[in-house]
Amino acid sequence: MDKIKDLGFAKLDLSRSERTGQSETVFCPGKTSEQLAAILLAFQEENIPVLGTKCSAEQAEFLAEKQIPVTYDPTSKILSSNWGARPLLKGKIAVCTGGTADIPAAEEAAKTIEFFGAEVDRHYDVGVAGLHRLLARVDQIREADIVIAAAGMEGALGSVIAGLTDAPVIAIPTSVGYGASFEGIAPLLAMLNSCAEGMSVVNIDNGFGAGVLACRILRMKGRNR
Amino acid sequence: MDKIKDLGFAKLDLSRSERTGQSETVFCPGKTSEQLAAILLAFQEENIPVLGTKCSAEQAEFLAEKQIPVTYDPTSKILSSNWGARPLLKGKIAVCTGGTADIPAAEEAAKTIEFFGAEVDRHYDVGVAGLHRLLARVDQIREADIVIAAAGMEGALGSVIAGLTDAPVIAIPTSVGYGASFEGIAPLLAMLNSCAEGMSVVNIDNGFGAGVLACRILRMKGRNR
Amino acid sequence: MDKIKDLGFAKLDLSRSERTGQSETVFCPGKTSEQLAAILLAFQEENIPVLGTKCSAEQAEFLAEKQIPVTYDPTSKILSSNWGARPLLKGKIAVCTGGTADIPAAEEAAKTIEFFGAEVDRHYDVGVAGLHRLLARVDQIREADIVIAAAGMEGALGSVIAGLTDAPVIAIPTSVGYGASFEGIAPLLAMLNSCAEGMSVVNIDNGFGAGVLACRILRMKGRNR
Amino acid sequence: MDKIKDLGFAKLDLSRSERTGQSETVFCPGKTSEQLAAILLAFQEENIPVLGTKCSAEQAEFLAEKQIPVTYDPTSKILSSNWGARPLLKGKIAVCTGGTADIPAAEEAAKTIEFFGAEVDRHYDVGVAGLHRLLARVDQIREADIVIAAAGMEGALGSVIAGLTDAPVIAIPTSVGYGASFEGIAPLLAMLNSCAEGMSVVNIDNGFGAGVLACRILRMKGRNR
Amino acid sequence: MDKIKDLGFAKLDLSRSERTGQSETVFCPGKTSEQLAAILLAFQEENIPVLGTKCSAEQAEFLAEKQIPVTYDPTSKILSSNWGARPLLKGKIAVCTGGTADIPAAEEAAKTIEFFGAEVDRHYDVGVAGLHRLLARVDQIREADIVIAAAGMEGALGSVIAGLTDAPVIAIPTSVGYGASFEGIAPLLAMLNSCAEGMSVVNIDNGFGAGVLACRILRMKGRNR
Amino acid sequence: MDKIKDLGFAKLDLSRSERTGQSETVFCPGKTSEQLAAILLAFQEENIPVLGTKCSAEQAEFLAEKQIPVTYDPTSKILSSNWGARPLLKGKIAVCTGGTADIPAAEEAAKTIEFFGAEVDRHYDVGVAGLHRLLARVDQIREADIVIAAAGMEGALGSVIAGLTDAPVIAIPTSVGYGASFEGIAPLLAMLNSCAEGMSVVNIDNGFGAGVLACRILRMKGRNR
Amino acid sequence: MDKIKDLGFAKLDLSRSERTGQSETVFCPGKTSEQLAAILLAFQEENIPVLGTKCSAEQAEFLAEKQIPVTYDPTSKILSSNWGARPLLKGKIAVCTGGTADIPAAEEAAKTIEFFGAEVDRHYDVGVAGLHRLLARVDQIREADIVIAAAGMEGALGSVIAGLTDAPVIAIPTSVGYGASFEGIAPLLAMLNSCAEGMSVVNIDNGFGAGVLACRILRMKGRNR
Amino acid sequence: MDKIKDLGFAKLDLSRSERTGQSETVFCPGKTSEQLAAILLAFQEENIPVLGTKCSAEQAEFLAEKQIPVTYDPTSKILSSNWGARPLLKGKIAVCTGGTADIPAAEEAAKTIEFFGAEVDRHYDVGVAGLHRLLARVDQIREADIVIAAAGMEGALGSVIAGLTDAPVIAIPTSVGYGASFEGIAPLLAMLNSCAEGMSVVNIDNGFGAGVLACRILRMKGRNR
Repeated sequence: MDKIKDLGFAKLDLSRSERTGQSETVFCPGKTSEQLAAILLAFQEENIPVLGTKCSAEQAEFLAEKQIPVTYDPTSKILSSNWGARPLLKGKIAVCTGGTADIPAAEEAAKTIEFFGAEVDRHYDVGVAGLHRLLARVDQIREADIVIAAAGMEGALGSVIAGLTDAPVIAIPTSVGYGASFEGIAPLLAMLNSCAEGMSVVNIDNGFGAGVLACRILRMKGRNR
Repeated sequence: MDKIKDLGFAKLDLSRSERTGQSETVFCPGKTSEQLAAILLAFQEENIPVLGTKCSAEQAEFLAEKQIPVTYDPTSKILSSNWGARPLLKGKIAVCTGGTADIPAAEEAAKTIEFFGAEVDRHYDVGVAGLHRLLARVDQIREADIVIAAAGMEGALGSVIAGLTDAPVIAIPTSVGYGASFEGIAPLLAMLNSCAEGMSVVNIDNGFGAGVLACRILRMKGRNR
Repeated sequence: MDKIKDLGFAKLDLSRSERTGQSETVFCPGKTSEQLAAILLAFQEENIPVLGTKCSAEQAEFLAEKQIPVTYDPTSKILSSNWGARPLLKGKIAVCTGGTADIPAAEEAAKTIEFFGAEVDRHYDVGVAGLHRLLARVDQIREADIVIAAAGMEGALGSVIAGLTDAPVIAIPTSVGYGASFEGIAPLLAMLNSCAEGMSVVNIDNGFGAGVLACRILRMKGRNR
Repeated sequence: MDKIKDLGFAKLDLSRSERTGQSETVFCPGKTSEQLAAILLAFQEENIPVLGTKCSAEQAEFLAEKQIPVTYDPTSKILSSNWGARPLLKGKIAVCTGGTADIPAAEEAAKTIEFFGAEVDRHYDVGVAGLHRLLARVDQIREADIVIAAAGMEGALGSVIAGLTDAPVIAIPTSVGYGASFEGIAPLLAMLNSCAEGMSVVNIDNGFGAGVLACRILRMKGRNR
Repeated sequence: MDKIKDLGFAKLDLSRSERTGQSETVFCPGKTSEQLAAILLAFQEENIPVLGTKCSAEQAEFLAEKQIPVTYDPTSKILSSNWGARPLLKGKIAVCTGGTADIPAAEEAAKTIEFFGAEVDRHYDVGVAGLHRLLARVDQIREADIVIAAAGMEGALGSVIAGLTDAPVIAIPTSVGYGASFEGIAPLLAMLNSCAEGMSVVNIDNGFGAGVLACRILRMKGRNR
Repeated sequence: MDKIKDLGFAKLDLSRSERTGQSETVFCPGKTSEQLAAILLAFQEENIPVLGTKCSAEQAEFLAEKQIPVTYDPTSKILSSNWGARPLLKGKIAVCTGGTADIPAAEEAAKTIEFFGAEVDRHYDVGVAGLHRLLARVDQIREADIVIAAAGMEGALGSVIAGLTDAPVIAIPTSVGYGASFEGIAPLLAMLNSCAEGMSVVNIDNGFGAGVLACRILRMKGRNR
Repeated sequence: MDKIKDLGFAKLDLSRSERTGQSETVFCPGKTSEQLAAILLAFQEENIPVLGTKCSAEQAEFLAEKQIPVTYDPTSKILSSNWGARPLLKGKIAVCTGGTADIPAAEEAAKTIEFFGAEVDRHYDVGVAGLHRLLARVDQIREADIVIAAAGMEGALGSVIAGLTDAPVIAIPTSVGYGASFEGIAPLLAMLNSCAEGMSVVNIDNGFGAGVLACRILRMKGRNR
Repeated sequence: MDKIKDLGFAKLDLSRSERTGQSETVFCPGKTSEQLAAILLAFQEENIPVLGTKCSAEQAEFLAEKQIPVTYDPTSKILSSNWGARPLLKGKIAVCTGGTADIPAAEEAAKTIEFFGAEVDRHYDVGVAGLHRLLARVDQIREADIVIAAAGMEGALGSVIAGLTDAPVIAIPTSVGYGASFEGIAPLLAMLNSCAEGMSVVNIDNGFGAGVLACRILRMKGRNR
């Protein structure tokens, strides 16, 4: 039976990690620092590992002051608990970016994957405007079980990679760009309209979503259904 | 080396199915019936199986008149060649819809998956407004390796399923609805913003994209990398 | 006859609460702190209770300095006068949220309802991604006369609740989310396109509008027309 | 326990009308005429009354040919079964339109309400550009329990009525207009942003949604909770 | 012949006020304070009166420090030179707002009109949600040659006034509102789609544009063509 | 007192032309041919002249069959009654277009103005891409009391004319164009953002609105207020 | 001096081809067949060659019936006069498409360029999803003075080509695609946001615009300024 | 062979300037100051000149503190290295703006062009609302090989210039404006829909893109292909 801990402002699903094999996650924006701390402590009490996403520097600082044992990565804004055991996942996921500015979204995916126990192979700044940079990496990328492609601006990276490999591709549109990028609409639409096969898309800057889906796929791969 | 057949208006990749294990596909809209026929004949000549998507009734009729041995399904608008051998894929994919009107997109996914050799389990009209219809099916859905959820209107089906199963979920927003559905924008945005984990999204009405991605995942599962 | 007090920058309707049984309300944004204070004092002079919405911390601080007897709730940004008598309303309204970050909009509704004299039953963080949290609460929710559902991201909460209860449902899309949530457009569209029956929608983050409509419905219920 | 009839392409909820006191409804678009007929026959078999919305002339003609005993109203595109008993609802609902062209949406609401057993009072072509037409009717409108206001173009009717009555107002934006009305976006946004209190909004042209919500409110009013 | 003064970053039209009877105007945003000062000084040198719009507090402060003889109104952000003679214009223009928060846009119009020499009659906070406030003023409004109506939110004020008077109406959508007002898109669309006759629209918050057009109309009225 | 004739589906304002000096107008879209005929006959009975806008060829044909004495202009889709006396208006209005394809919108304005008794001076195909065509006409355009500028595509005509004349300019964005013109959004936005002074905007393709506003201005000019 | 022929509905610039070295062009949509014929005849009378764009089959048929000596290409919808002499232009322009369905836009560019006297090198169906098709052609493409890249869907072709060649690239977004391609918005935004250098963009499906700009560049190249 | 330097977060193309004759460029936003410094130092080490775009004041200050020999222009936000030799380009490019506020975008183009070795002729504040300012400059503008036109608001400058000159025109929409300019969408759409021939468009505020394309065209002009 599902065990729920009710904090009033939040209902924590304590049996979820047992049930699905995946640790808990917390979306940090819109929570006060006090709420966030209370949620983390509730999981710590049960020794359940937990991952926080899009955690602001202010929130992280508050948690540090309260001496809650979590690690904060300012690039990806990922918060990861230092308690609880996490199972390993068999498989390797290539995480690629079009440019340097796409790295925060990519690292959100990479850190999520690593938290959930799989291996990440990073290929950053391999965008389509300088194709030789990507072609130089294509053999390595082909070795991955799944490819995650984060790109802003015209968002073409995923299409090109999906045409060069036979692995499933998860595309992350990023808000990198200006003007008619409209905070990521341009790469989002480009990725949804890809003429390449075998690709799907997550929300703008949603590295976490891409990472957690990749882990679900790996977990499914490991089963004998 | 890649073998390309150049018809002038189209460059056909004849070695692709050898290379990636997946048959060829043709996007039918915007092609004249004559162009479509020529493309199909070129593949038939090489005995390469081929799938056509979003084929209009007019195009299908033209092909029938020309006696090109293809099968046309008017619901999904899928065209499948009757020549060439296609390998089987191990795995089962649940294809669900919110309502009856979402069936064309779902069938595009289902027929694509069946063409590429995997098993489909259909669950149609299980939308969230009548949750007991979905809950009655949830055990069956949980047996699938991957779930595809096609829904128009508010597009909530994928989120609810992703919370009830631990399989990867591919969401297809459909253009079913009117007014502020804006031809599928409403479910597209809803799916991109899902608070559920383990889901990604394809283009509006892109059943083919969902199906072919599901097959890529199954193919990856079958490898020993 | 309608009694209007003209402050130049604002025309106050002093007979409205007599006429309709509902106290006055003031939309705070775009008013200078001085204008807001003058409006409140004009109502205080007549001993007419008044509710302020979306009041900024700066405005509230100014009022405190001027020692105007109002109560300010920073979560909901609701300002309520401490003068004047307010009638009770018979009925109970369930206020639900998808997540913790939707609480400010929900509290705007709840505090509005309480100001106007009805009872509120809060159910926070019961979003559709973890359906068991909602199902655990559904019997309580069914006891309400009206349900208010505040949700951001994919905004599916209202649809699911409207399918589980026979009470009228008022949906509040919230600006919670990022990327393709477009500051609340995603849940707004989802809610407008709900396939569930018996639901209507207010503006993004408009907890006040939902609350005041719920009170109108309760007031209508109490009449013998 | 919920009784569901599974037609494959549709799962019919046969116990719903018993459970909630409201007859079934069918959204006709996107269903083939054959599917629609099969759904209606399944309800007829159980003697459950059923309402169809947005039924096309082609669908209606097909049903007539098959001699299925339903009534079709071409203005509202409402289909209503001639079988099964329907309870009466106590209460009166004013249905108003800004112009003549808004009548189809208004009639969808009115016919829905009448099908579910409540009384409708129609006030058509009372838009704000000629305020005296509305003011001449305002005393009659004030007698209603609930007001439904359908308007296209600038969509101001609901705001003005909500300021003139103390009943709850349900606003229907219509697709009437051209150019920058964008098929109903203009009145939809206007209604969502109404500065009047006590109003909520349904989808563009969704007369059915407004009608069914009004009936839910009346049903709630009739209860002793 | 046209006399142009070239400052490099700006080309000033020094003969314009002679030619058209209307003083010069300067759009302040995007200009550095130094550029703005240089432009003003160039006009002062020629004793040509000049009006500045959307001037920031920072720019105004810089000008004050440089002791350039201009008057700054922080509500309307209008800057008006204290040099040069300006002709009077015969006629009266009613400037109305829906609410208190629309006053900055309305004052931009009013101050522009007064600078160019016509009379303004202000009617603020007469929005359609409380129609009696507007009806109490309608006789005064009918005395104006032209009516300017500034409103945010649902932007219905102009439509109602245009139906109550036979003067030309210039509507200013304002960015007042939140959520689905989309920074003024809601009232802009509402005003463009007005079913009332005799109204036209300027840009969001463009009080200056409304004011200057009103003056053009008065000037035309005064001619004997 | 206002005399209203109630046809059920429409409420006709019979005393309006007496009150405001302007004949009645009917927006034809969304009305059945029977409704349109009944409205026209009601005005004919009272000998009140009436103008119809955006009348379809089918509606016009129906009226011709019923032998209702109206004149139909297929270019502008204007319907004008052949009964009732209409006063003359003193003044001349220049109606300009960017290209040939903008003529329908321009003629809607021109025919409206002529129906209401003022003089029109047409200048068609004088768009900004070939400026000499416009400059060759500028002296004639300057003689008008008011200028109406209809343009699609980039919609720059109004800005350029407003800079060349001192008359008030009413801009009509037209739906002429393709691709990123988005059915008239491009010229609508361009006109709203004009850097020229003295211009306002009506809805896309709203020649009628521009014409009727121009007549209001001329009528105001003729008064001695 | 500029010689203009005034047809009332159109003002023809007869000296333009002398002045700029480029023949006349006519945008056909929105013109009646009679207007189009009259325009062509006026040019024929002066023996001035003329190109028509986006000419419908109906217009072309009318011209054929009137025996006006023009050639019509149904793929590109280009109409070219068979009279008048046209100068040659030195240079070669590569015209590429992502897929077969982009050919109409590409042919509009190609036929425009050929009409104005330059050489075209076609490379069709070389989209980025199958990069080897493009790489096989890259040496030929590099020989062109200018590259035109027409692509729908994700519109990445231009970016990749601009990275592979040092010629100026003109990108044409096409309306090929469905769902979230939004009639060409997706490739338009992608192209505007290209991270590749040396590319600019024309309107959706504006092959003519790309072609005529390419010719302007070649003409400029040929000059000794 | 291409020489790539891999910094992990960036892959630098060191042989590009040799290969294409154009120095390197770096898009600064989204890079940390440390990353930017490391990239610049890597190019300095190889004595390869490099241009940075959209560099923030904070980034520039960091580089100054680190004593990296670059020049920073705060108006255009262009960063240019003081090392390495750059070839000259034959040709002159006119850079025009509609207003003073468009100068930053124009200077981004101008400084880019000057960095790559061509001559710039500046014409600022020559917008279409005061046409005589532009006409006074047109002879000078006609002498340029290429014209760049930067304009916000209605963005008509490019269309008018393209009609007055026979040079290729590159249009830069700028984010100058407010309200319905939507951060540059208005001029972007206007420019894409220009009825003038020979113009193409770059991203909003993308002066760099316009400048680098102009240089590509000049480089192509200088070749003997």
